[in-house]
Amino acid sequence: MTQSNREEPFRVTNASERAAVRQPVIALMTDFGLRDGFVGIMKGVIAGIVPHAQLIDISHDIAPQNVAAGAWLLSTAYRYFPAGSIFLCVVDPGVGSQRRAIALEAGDWFFVGPDNGLFSYVLAEQPVRQAVALENPAYRLPVVSTTFHGRDIFAPAAAHLARGVPLADFGTILEPHALQRLALNLPRREGGRIEASVIYIDHFGNLVTSIPLTLVPDLFTAPRVRLLVPQHNLTIERRQPFFAGEAGEDEPFVYSDSAGYVGIAIRNGNAAARLGMSVGEAVTLVIEES
Amino acid sequence: MTQSNREEPFRVTNASERAAVRQPVIALMTDFGLRDGFVGIMKGVIAGIVPHAQLIDISHDIAPQNVAAGAWLLSTAYRYFPAGSIFLCVVDPGVGSQRRAIALEAGDWFFVGPDNGLFSYVLAEQPVRQAVALENPAYRLPVVSTTFHGRDIFAPAAAHLARGVPLADFGTILEPHALQRLALNLPRREGGRIEASVIYIDHFGNLVTSIPLTLVPDLFTAPRVRLLVPQHNLTIERRQPFFAGEAGEDEPFVYSDSAGYVGIAIRNGNAAARLGMSVGEAVTLVIEES
Amino acid sequence: MTQSNREEPFRVTNASERAAVRQPVIALMTDFGLRDGFVGIMKGVIAGIVPHAQLIDISHDIAPQNVAAGAWLLSTAYRYFPAGSIFLCVVDPGVGSQRRAIALEAGDWFFVGPDNGLFSYVLAEQPVRQAVALENPAYRLPVVSTTFHGRDIFAPAAAHLARGVPLADFGTILEPHALQRLALNLPRREGGRIEASVIYIDHFGNLVTSIPLTLVPDLFTAPRVRLLVPQHNLTIERRQPFFAGEAGEDEPFVYSDSAGYVGIAIRNGNAAARLGMSVGEAVTLVIEES
Repeated sequence: MTQSNREEPFRVTNASERAAVRQPVIALMTDFGLRDGFVGIMKGVIAGIVPHAQLIDISHDIAPQNVAAGAWLLSTAYRYFPAGSIFLCVVDPGVGSQRRAIALEAGDWFFVGPDNGLFSYVLAEQPVRQAVALENPAYRLPVVSTTFHGRDIFAPAAAHLARGVPLADFGTILEPHALQRLALNLPRREGGRIEASVIYIDHFGNLVTSIPLTLVPDLFTAPRVRLLVPQHNLTIERRQPFFAGEAGEDEPFVYSDSAGYVGIAIRNGNAAARLGMSVGEAVTLVIEES
Repeated sequence: MTQSNREEPFRVTNASERAAVRQPVIALMTDFGLRDGFVGIMKGVIAGIVPHAQLIDISHDIAPQNVAAGAWLLSTAYRYFPAGSIFLCVVDPGVGSQRRAIALEAGDWFFVGPDNGLFSYVLAEQPVRQAVALENPAYRLPVVSTTFHGRDIFAPAAAHLARGVPLADFGTILEPHALQRLALNLPRREGGRIEASVIYIDHFGNLVTSIPLTLVPDLFTAPRVRLLVPQHNLTIERRQPFFAGEAGEDEPFVYSDSAGYVGIAIRNGNAAARLGMSVGEAVTLVIEES
Repeated sequence: MTQSNREEPFRVTNASERAAVRQPVIALMTDFGLRDGFVGIMKGVIAGIVPHAQLIDISHDIAPQNVAAGAWLLSTAYRYFPAGSIFLCVVDPGVGSQRRAIALEAGDWFFVGPDNGLFSYVLAEQPVRQAVALENPAYRLPVVSTTFHGRDIFAPAAAHLARGVPLADFGTILEPHALQRLALNLPRREGGRIEASVIYIDHFGNLVTSIPLTLVPDLFTAPRVRLLVPQHNLTIERRQPFFAGEAGEDEPFVYSDSAGYVGIAIRNGNAAARLGMSVGEAVTLVIEES
């Protein structure tokens, strides 16, 4: 009843529809915010190279320079984009330093950005078909600044990819194992017990844990489940498959978040604010196995 | 001099221009915010189904789960979109529960979203040509979550509509009177007196009342007008057709808001903050009829 | 090593690529915010007139009615857009008053908005090819409000321009010298000394000064440079071409901002917050000339 879509990505299967995909998709994710014009400038650069791309914003409000947060958010989104989509991702505290600029094809998609761990979940979840260092000056702006590679290197690379330039033309081929990866601390299940943490708080204040729903197929069928939040001396036993259920307006419950993880919510309320919980806080899920 | 555009929607009348409308418009309005990637994911789903749509954001900052605020904002926007535009609207506290998912053709436009009153103004203002329940699994994602129907049901429906799928293919035909509607509390004029309330505060701090300009064609020609704000013991008599007029920098005045309603503003200032007024506050307009 | 891109705009030079630019670009910049639907409404109007335009947001978070801030932000962005792009810019405290609505071709681009100084940098930097007053009712909405010319005048004008309507059809030709301009207070260099100010604080808290990098080609090669901030009794001597350099985590440094100006940053930190500096604050750059 409450399954994740993570393992079953959506596909356009009708061949004539697929043929109609003449408009390449470039999806953008950054920590630039929308106030300063940085994102618009990148799109202006893209429009000069590939005028007919469909430009889709995933988020530009990644916490500044928080590579891990960006990596996670990307993991919740990319599967829902059509095959061939190009993800232009810039959370880049090392801009201008020796960190590499890369592009890669993984699964059915392309990814462009700094080689700093931003693609860690993608690399863990998808087979890497090819990866390259972005070195070819033909696919950069004529002058490359030291502080805005989103504009000068990454946006042009994504746009030229969308035009059909092969990955290998951008620079040196990289071995997948040479790409930077973050330690993801994926939780493991030991019997019915899973040690995890809060990994994200969404716009509504729902708390998303690091426990993938694939690890708990019995979340809603086990006779009893307890989510322990030791720091707040809290135990949540109520489970609810959707928000508008029977829980009282102040009672937290466990639900299956649409990103594919176990979450904590309060009906019509902001769970993070009401419970005082924040990202990184430890939680333990205990499933009474039948 | 100061008329509303509400009654005279803009139309492309040139036939060759109309023929050129090969790029369907999908306009999105939600309470998802832009930080979490939810909106980008919906657009990714759409791009996989109808790659060449023009995707336009109306707002994603509706107050969380405030269906009435979403309904009102939609009413200020839809007339300005070309005939055939599809409005994908998700303010959906009841997601996953028994509330229906619907699509409808009303006036010259299509609307897709939850059947919870979000289309109340549209239903009051436009003839409903057809309405359906979104039931056909062919036009949903293969797996439907219990918490993100924007992604799994509404975005695919809007995209398939944009591809040309007829409304009737989506599910059971619904009678218009069976659709959920909010009580709109539209003000009435009794002589020169109108009891109303503040319905919206915009980004500039302008206070928009629930009094349609169509109810007060004499707003700027009557010898005297008083807008009473009893809770703040305030009477506003100055009328001004635009912001940069003769009012002093601290003096509130009545103006004709571009959404089609009587508003209260302060020149170069934030009226809501200066007057301490908020949404829901009662106001009375008294027009001295000549 | 650390040059501005400002003097060397990006161009698509390949002729076949240029021919492919069948999708006109309309770039939008306003102080409307994204909450109220104003921007979406303008895009809806555009889509009804020119369905296939590529609509790109530069920023909608210009400080309300701050024409100078809008003028500056536009100056950092327009060069990166393809030739022929149309900039639809609305920061318009004088809406509804006697201020003119204008469109102009300057350099390789078109600009549409109020004649209130919003195009001051563009006018200082680019040759004006033609400028007109937006007067022709055929290129406005049928009813023009007194408070939302973005919707009723500017968006239709930009869209009709994108359709190919010649500038001269919109109204009276204006002499370039008759257009409103702000006093830009561009700093001058006297020997190695430049008196300037903080002109912008970006999303990351980096402080951008009004000193163009073109004025200080020796910024990173001079034996010594001092940036004086008298109000905070601060002298910054460290120079660093990019953010991830050798400066300690609390040590401010001078860098070359991607907008083409001298900036002040703190590694992995918010310089404005840490130093307590704000827009308008005076700074003096002293370059020891070798």
